[in-house]
Amino acid sequence: MSFQNPVFIPGPTNIPEALRRAVDMPTIDHRSALFAEILHPAREKVKAVLKSEAAEVFFFPSTGTGGWEVAITNTLCPGDRVLAARNGMFSQRWIDMCERHGLTVEVVETPWGDGIPADRFEEILTADAGHEIKAVLATHNETATGVTSDIAAVRRAMEAAGHPALLLVDGVSSIASMDFRMDEWGVDVAVTGSQKGFMLPAGLAIVGFSPRAMAAVERATLPRTFFDIRDMGRSYAANGYPFTPAVGLLNGLNQSCDMLLAEGLEAVFARHHRIAEGVRAAVRAWGLELCANAPELYSDSVSAIRTPEGVNATDIVTHAADVYGVAFGVGLGEVAGKVFRIGHLGSLTDVMALSGIATAEMCMADLGMDVTLGSGVAAAQEVYRRSAGNGRREAA
Amino acid sequence: MSFQNPVFIPGPTNIPEALRRAVDMPTIDHRSALFAEILHPAREKVKAVLKSEAAEVFFFPSTGTGGWEVAITNTLCPGDRVLAARNGMFSQRWIDMCERHGLTVEVVETPWGDGIPADRFEEILTADAGHEIKAVLATHNETATGVTSDIAAVRRAMEAAGHPALLLVDGVSSIASMDFRMDEWGVDVAVTGSQKGFMLPAGLAIVGFSPRAMAAVERATLPRTFFDIRDMGRSYAANGYPFTPAVGLLNGLNQSCDMLLAEGLEAVFARHHRIAEGVRAAVRAWGLELCANAPELYSDSVSAIRTPEGVNATDIVTHAADVYGVAFGVGLGEVAGKVFRIGHLGSLTDVMALSGIATAEMCMADLGMDVTLGSGVAAAQEVYRRSAGNGRREAA
Amino acid sequence: MSFQNPVFIPGPTNIPEALRRAVDMPTIDHRSALFAEILHPAREKVKAVLKSEAAEVFFFPSTGTGGWEVAITNTLCPGDRVLAARNGMFSQRWIDMCERHGLTVEVVETPWGDGIPADRFEEILTADAGHEIKAVLATHNETATGVTSDIAAVRRAMEAAGHPALLLVDGVSSIASMDFRMDEWGVDVAVTGSQKGFMLPAGLAIVGFSPRAMAAVERATLPRTFFDIRDMGRSYAANGYPFTPAVGLLNGLNQSCDMLLAEGLEAVFARHHRIAEGVRAAVRAWGLELCANAPELYSDSVSAIRTPEGVNATDIVTHAADVYGVAFGVGLGEVAGKVFRIGHLGSLTDVMALSGIATAEMCMADLGMDVTLGSGVAAAQEVYRRSAGNGRREAA
Amino acid sequence: MSFQNPVFIPGPTNIPEALRRAVDMPTIDHRSALFAEILHPAREKVKAVLKSEAAEVFFFPSTGTGGWEVAITNTLCPGDRVLAARNGMFSQRWIDMCERHGLTVEVVETPWGDGIPADRFEEILTADAGHEIKAVLATHNETATGVTSDIAAVRRAMEAAGHPALLLVDGVSSIASMDFRMDEWGVDVAVTGSQKGFMLPAGLAIVGFSPRAMAAVERATLPRTFFDIRDMGRSYAANGYPFTPAVGLLNGLNQSCDMLLAEGLEAVFARHHRIAEGVRAAVRAWGLELCANAPELYSDSVSAIRTPEGVNATDIVTHAADVYGVAFGVGLGEVAGKVFRIGHLGSLTDVMALSGIATAEMCMADLGMDVTLGSGVAAAQEVYRRSAGNGRREAA
Repeated sequence: MSFQNPVFIPGPTNIPEALRRAVDMPTIDHRSALFAEILHPAREKVKAVLKSEAAEVFFFPSTGTGGWEVAITNTLCPGDRVLAARNGMFSQRWIDMCERHGLTVEVVETPWGDGIPADRFEEILTADAGHEIKAVLATHNETATGVTSDIAAVRRAMEAAGHPALLLVDGVSSIASMDFRMDEWGVDVAVTGSQKGFMLPAGLAIVGFSPRAMAAVERATLPRTFFDIRDMGRSYAANGYPFTPAVGLLNGLNQSCDMLLAEGLEAVFARHHRIAEGVRAAVRAWGLELCANAPELYSDSVSAIRTPEGVNATDIVTHAADVYGVAFGVGLGEVAGKVFRIGHLGSLTDVMALSGIATAEMCMADLGMDVTLGSGVAAAQEVYRRSAGNGRREAA
Repeated sequence: MSFQNPVFIPGPTNIPEALRRAVDMPTIDHRSALFAEILHPAREKVKAVLKSEAAEVFFFPSTGTGGWEVAITNTLCPGDRVLAARNGMFSQRWIDMCERHGLTVEVVETPWGDGIPADRFEEILTADAGHEIKAVLATHNETATGVTSDIAAVRRAMEAAGHPALLLVDGVSSIASMDFRMDEWGVDVAVTGSQKGFMLPAGLAIVGFSPRAMAAVERATLPRTFFDIRDMGRSYAANGYPFTPAVGLLNGLNQSCDMLLAEGLEAVFARHHRIAEGVRAAVRAWGLELCANAPELYSDSVSAIRTPEGVNATDIVTHAADVYGVAFGVGLGEVAGKVFRIGHLGSLTDVMALSGIATAEMCMADLGMDVTLGSGVAAAQEVYRRSAGNGRREAA
Repeated sequence: MSFQNPVFIPGPTNIPEALRRAVDMPTIDHRSALFAEILHPAREKVKAVLKSEAAEVFFFPSTGTGGWEVAITNTLCPGDRVLAARNGMFSQRWIDMCERHGLTVEVVETPWGDGIPADRFEEILTADAGHEIKAVLATHNETATGVTSDIAAVRRAMEAAGHPALLLVDGVSSIASMDFRMDEWGVDVAVTGSQKGFMLPAGLAIVGFSPRAMAAVERATLPRTFFDIRDMGRSYAANGYPFTPAVGLLNGLNQSCDMLLAEGLEAVFARHHRIAEGVRAAVRAWGLELCANAPELYSDSVSAIRTPEGVNATDIVTHAADVYGVAFGVGLGEVAGKVFRIGHLGSLTDVMALSGIATAEMCMADLGMDVTLGSGVAAAQEVYRRSAGNGRREAA
Repeated sequence: MSFQNPVFIPGPTNIPEALRRAVDMPTIDHRSALFAEILHPAREKVKAVLKSEAAEVFFFPSTGTGGWEVAITNTLCPGDRVLAARNGMFSQRWIDMCERHGLTVEVVETPWGDGIPADRFEEILTADAGHEIKAVLATHNETATGVTSDIAAVRRAMEAAGHPALLLVDGVSSIASMDFRMDEWGVDVAVTGSQKGFMLPAGLAIVGFSPRAMAAVERATLPRTFFDIRDMGRSYAANGYPFTPAVGLLNGLNQSCDMLLAEGLEAVFARHHRIAEGVRAAVRAWGLELCANAPELYSDSVSAIRTPEGVNATDIVTHAADVYGVAFGVGLGEVAGKVFRIGHLGSLTDVMALSGIATAEMCMADLGMDVTLGSGVAAAQEVYRRSAGNGRREAA
């Protein structure tokens, strides 16, 4: 097991030294006063990352998927109607979860590579005069396709339709990497995990509930115990936790937020954008195309790259792992074999990104693709040397 | 935050160096072949710890409480009837979970300090001629009262009644510390977590399903997605995971099992028994009594110690933390303020135990209790020097 | 290899978590600006620990023994005369080093268990009218016997004799654990290491040179290169190091000083004194005697405990390691087999100390000594509960 | 302090995870049996790395510079004559050390960029009919110039001259990275440190003494105590150490050797050669030249790259650190400002090397040098994809 090269999967990300240490904590008594000194600041700092004044933040020893279950079981009732677009593997899984929990999902089939069709949502919501749709589900960043949807547009669609549904947003691969404005966009439940923008190991579901969502909690009748935010909230108020918390991850989350807020959220987002721009410049230099169908959809946390006819994209991922010891992401679901993914979120530098780009080039050349060695690297270097150089000079 | 003294809470336990390191792992690609090399051996080794040939083992990024939810949602249907004894805080919480998931719980009220009344279970099960009771819930070790119940007796009661209900067992604070015989006792679902006998940080629910329980999974209609073992099982078969796994904890679990199996399960249990005997000798020397009502109920992983009238047991815990930097467990629920708990499970030596006993003595003396300094230590030393000495000599 | 129990050797000490992490640092470029940010603050903070305004502090990748070599080779010339008392293994070794480096040592033979005879020093220095004695060597704390000598008295003796010799002090097992006043006592070279009061792994020699000692450096002709403080000084002035520095240890030293200074040096010394008093109370309760011949000589960092006739003290140490997994210190040199040592310096709590005392009791009982189990623990508990309790209350 | 990018200094190298952990060890009693279990295997394994059957291996808490002092003070007498070539900063420093220790150095001035002139050595040794030269000093790999000298040729020159001098070799930046044959080449003292090919933090001098060198130890009269291998040897024989050992580093050395020997020394050397070839291909693609004057001198552990007239090479190093967070090596001594160095030894992959090459390209472009972005990367990729790819395929 070698850990020398960075990983380029779209999460879990590379983990900074400081966060490795914060998580790797000896046991404390989680019923002692010490726990509250970890819990409460983490809640406050996550609110800042969510750009919310009003949200209640909860942490579950779980993952983003568990976070989705928190979102729906705490706000909805069996048989409730929800609206969602299916434009990738993760939106698909959320739809599946809703159905298995007895919800009726109005699915808007959307090409994988497109974003959420806000106009279509507006039509459907407008048509729903009886307000039977109780929630709109939106995947902010489709990790499978590298597509970032416009959540503000979804909210505008809801407003245009005068529709009172809750807006539940999967921000698993966007929050803390890309701009996310919980209050401004009227997000009612925001869901993420520890292992993406927060740069921690997997193991925490992080959810933010708006006041409207909090109000819905009391009406929601979907069965829940482990994921019930009422127990969570009551325990927090008593400086405790309803079961055994993942203290190390919470301690790490605290420090992760400190790092993000010290760098500045806008600087964090700009860094992700710059690194992503370099990767996209490389893709263009290789003569390849992204899965995302338009520039405004390009994700700053992951790029899904389409391979030409006759090339199984998964071979690139396997070859990179076997020959060069580098991890890229495979295509999932509908785009399996058709795309490979370069994750560029979390703890990453321009220099690390260049090593991923260089590796992808070698793999594609090894597999007989018509790619000029060094071409993608050079294109990315142009991006990085100008922006990084300028950035640093200004800082000095 | 000082980490110099051991903790004496009944989990999470002190974490051995080797497990700290195994958990604190850099990021790997959980979709690569490497993950299977961690997952599958961990499943096999946990089966050995459960003393089961037949079980299917599953891991969830969650806690023991999540493990209970796995147990009930994967085997039962809304409205199903289950049988359980309420003899402590944790059995109480499981009952509550069942009720919140729409099950009907036949509760046998049992004094806190007693074990599961197998004879009463037999009566009830015999009376249930229609086999409406679908599951018997049993808390093997009540962490709140330091009471270990006889699971074999529960199984015998079920057999005597000729009752086909499933036997679901909470082994959170027993498994890997005390003898647990999944196959021999006919346990259908065994539930535990990473942070007790496995000596790891909290964050993993570990569950074993018998073939009968696996058969029930297909019939169970309680809604579940995150906790659905069908997704888990399908993913394992493809060397994967249905969402992002807690790789570090799984890596740690592998190594934890290696440590337990290298020491030998019976040696692990004997060590827990010896250390517990020392603590109990100290309690007797102090003139105090355990919450557990009879010697055959004494838990080898935690001792709940009753304080005399007029002494708030919680004060001892607070004093130990504030003045000596040592964590004991408070009393919970019905015995809050009436007992304090010394956890003695997981990674602990006789020498560490003595420091806990010595601290408890100082606290009780500080608070005006009539306890002779050194008395409990001396009683425990007698236990440790004879058993430890003998054990080591045999080994040499 | 088990790391569960604390060690009770007189250094290296138990290492605090925070220092483990500070030392375990990824590689940095020691020729970059970052290095200076570690080096210079560490020098300043060590001066504070030495209670010196005037000293120049130097760090060598070495040990205390190397520090002695720094002290003599940088201040003396071949054939120079030095004065030293031989009252334990470490003073003996320093004398041996001087002789092997061509110095002539005026040795004052002193019973092992006694401190430096300042009055005898005064006589000798007074008699040395020609000032042929160039340096007085003083071992502040004889780790082998648990004897702390009075350095102020040695300085007074030098002053009474009107003697200009340099005062070179081995503070390896005293500095950062016990009061050390470099300027006030007129210490010219102070020597210590990273692995005692600074609670770090071994690997750094830490030396402080007074202005008088710095002046001597230019005249000293003993051959030296690796240990030459002139190269060190020149490199420091250029923010560098004359060879590859042990960056992690320097980083750890920085943080160690932060911890010591945040606790407060007087509080650190008081803590060592309190813990030592508990150990000494236990020794009295056991009916045993210290190697140190008078209370004013008792060391607060290590106790050497004489065993009765017929008991090989080394057996206690071996038994503790083999049967209980606890490390005490053996007797060295003249007192080998006659004493065993309990180290109580560095990172230690009252609670940890009690576990060492309890273990020593079990060992002595196991080996047939007439020791009452719990007696030493009880005596120490009396010390700890009163002082610790009081201390904490005042702090609150 | 960011640790995200690899370092490209010629030591200390990047440290593998497994070695970080092996070094970061809790305190053990270095006088217990456990220490011998670390010490003796490390000595044996280092012999294997040195390709020696006959050597005695010693470890000092020190650095390579201290190792040189071990080499000369244990084998030579004041006034002894030694022969050495000055062809870089490190050979220069060794010469200086000899002179400061009272030796007379016959210096062969050699262009920086050339290797040791074995023919000139032969002439001098032949002329030394009285065998006044007691030792020949040879720097195997001049870290300052990236020049590897032919030690076998030096030995042949000594044999041709029939000269009995000892052959003392500085293998600090060659051993464990490049082929080193202590017995075959007749090396009498081999010197290295922990922080280069062994991939550990700095802090250990590692020396091997041939039987002839061991015989010289008894005759050598240069003063020494800390660095005296007689004390070391006596202590080793008693499973001990003459002072406090750096246990963590020794533990790490053990594991480092395990890693090297498991990979296979020839595979380790081939890996270093392949990575170096990639860097050299990049240098050619940039139109630049190495400091080393001929291909047979090219070092596989470090490349010193000459910059064109008008470009201060140190600016590249500063720019890389400031703008891209990457550490290269500056030029030292005579070539300061004229070369910058890319270290490519120790724990490094092809992928990591590409990120260093890419960074150097950006820096040179940023500073206005005529370097085509991606050109060096492409040249190195050609080397890596063919050699790495082939190697891996064969292994599969």
